[in-house]
Amino acid sequence: MSLEERLLAGDERALARAITLVESGAPHGKDLLRRVRREGPLASSVRVVGVTGAPGSGKSTLVDRLVEASRRRDRRVGVVAVDPSSPFTGGAILGDRVRMTRWHADPGVFIRSMAARGHLGGLAAATLQVVALLDAHGFDDVIIETVGVGQGEVEIVGVADCTLVVLTPGQGDGVQAVKAGVMEIADVFVVNKADHDGAARLVRDVRAMLDLAAPGPGAFLPPIVETVASEGRGVDELVVAIDAHLARLEAGDGLAAKRRGRARHEVAALVSGALARLVRALPDDEMDAVAAGRSTPETAAERLIDRLAARSEPAGVTLFEGQPDDADGASR
Amino acid sequence: MSLEERLLAGDERALARAITLVESGAPHGKDLLRRVRREGPLASSVRVVGVTGAPGSGKSTLVDRLVEASRRRDRRVGVVAVDPSSPFTGGAILGDRVRMTRWHADPGVFIRSMAARGHLGGLAAATLQVVALLDAHGFDDVIIETVGVGQGEVEIVGVADCTLVVLTPGQGDGVQAVKAGVMEIADVFVVNKADHDGAARLVRDVRAMLDLAAPGPGAFLPPIVETVASEGRGVDELVVAIDAHLARLEAGDGLAAKRRGRARHEVAALVSGALARLVRALPDDEMDAVAAGRSTPETAAERLIDRLAARSEPAGVTLFEGQPDDADGASR
Repeated sequence: MSLEERLLAGDERALARAITLVESGAPHGKDLLRRVRREGPLASSVRVVGVTGAPGSGKSTLVDRLVEASRRRDRRVGVVAVDPSSPFTGGAILGDRVRMTRWHADPGVFIRSMAARGHLGGLAAATLQVVALLDAHGFDDVIIETVGVGQGEVEIVGVADCTLVVLTPGQGDGVQAVKAGVMEIADVFVVNKADHDGAARLVRDVRAMLDLAAPGPGAFLPPIVETVASEGRGVDELVVAIDAHLARLEAGDGLAAKRRGRARHEVAALVSGALARLVRALPDDEMDAVAAGRSTPETAAERLIDRLAARSEPAGVTLFEGQPDDADGASR
Repeated sequence: MSLEERLLAGDERALARAITLVESGAPHGKDLLRRVRREGPLASSVRVVGVTGAPGSGKSTLVDRLVEASRRRDRRVGVVAVDPSSPFTGGAILGDRVRMTRWHADPGVFIRSMAARGHLGGLAAATLQVVALLDAHGFDDVIIETVGVGQGEVEIVGVADCTLVVLTPGQGDGVQAVKAGVMEIADVFVVNKADHDGAARLVRDVRAMLDLAAPGPGAFLPPIVETVASEGRGVDELVVAIDAHLARLEAGDGLAAKRRGRARHEVAALVSGALARLVRALPDDEMDAVAAGRSTPETAAERLIDRLAARSEPAGVTLFEGQPDDADGASR
């Protein structure tokens, strides 16, 4: 049986191997992904939940509770823990190991960590590729978890069907920590550690912020759910809020729009990755000319686009590994 | 006298108008920028210092001290305060107003705030354009200050000739707050609030981190300077460290390389901006085909590049406002 067949049949070791292969950026990893996408279920029913929040907000514990909730409903769940900042310590990875040990014996749970390094096409694109593999493998739920609330995190979890933004009372500047961009991606706000001082105030502040930003009176606002993840409190309510959001999406064009958004995002990430490689290869003398005012950034930008279009890549730089054209070589 | 002539002659109101014009993205703003760059001093001697650090690290106070230091040396100094996250409160802007009031009567100081919104080509590109205008106007020093230490901030201050990363003792996880990427852009580390508990420890931790990441024994490591910006302590030492870094750059190919890097960065930002606009305009049915597995992200990416190259833009989307070709229309 080929790796692809084993993956589609739900073989667990095939999944881990497929992810490693795709992450490596090797041509037959790309081929595998392409075939899986073509032959996988056309109307996928995977539910993708994104979770983001500042370090220390209890995000991982909350995700663990969501995994429990999925398993109670007999749904298979994959967790992709993404760290766009790769801190120096192994803290995040250690935490993942603890979780991995806990769910180790359960074939219905798959946990994978991804760091920023080594993803030529960008971490966001790589995350979406792993989600596609989990989908092909038959997972019902996928949780994308990111550390932090910056630009990179927004980019990664913002493409989920339902995005949770986790806040906790007493985190410095409270609601001011919710940056623009983060607010816009939140489908559900979670106030975790709701038994701590200042939780009620934080809920009020978030609500006031949402009211302020509402397009008009009576506009639908994202719900705010209070949880104490460490004790499992509020998790049922959170699951209800997630279900309600997804039901609302399904009732309209929302779910299709979310999937379209993911596709758009992945296409953009691929081209951005190719562009970044070409930018690094821009000739020094051309850049010196711009720096000295003999040329302009706009002129150089036009030339860069021409190079991108001509696929006239410098040695050692490839636009997309495994072009659609060489799908023929994919029979291994 | 044209705006351009007034700008090059050092007219202060012309500078403010030119910045507003360029920030607006209007075609004659771009034209102005292009002409200023062509006719401005070929061998610019502006020194660009970038300052980044977490909120509450005393960054603004430190920048204020650096402004004082420049003025003591009779150097004209421009400050560009960039907030890539645009928080909901007007805190940052209020802080700027206080500073602006302080230096209001001094024509040798120019302070400008920039928020994330409204910059089609990206905030990093817009910042570099403002730096180019300050340069043309004859400023000796430009300080780019950003709030925070995320990806956006790294992108913005990383193109400076000398980048300061400001840390303070007692900021949660200390040196772990220094993310990858931030560490790599630091030319000088500043431990501010050095009179607080834990300062010595923080210095040790940063040093240990630098040693760990050093390419080999005896490798040059960025200096760590301790300051108490609120009292002006350590600022002279910091200025010495900045001067030393710039002297080292000038001695080698370093300064030219930094300027080349800024040009590269601006070109990349321009193309990325154009790309982002095209991505938003990608047809829904094409994205639905990708989402349903009837097409692949790679195929859609190829098609997007072709569109970028053909400049076949959808209605209402322009690649670069004010193309090199329409420079003729720049005589107004």
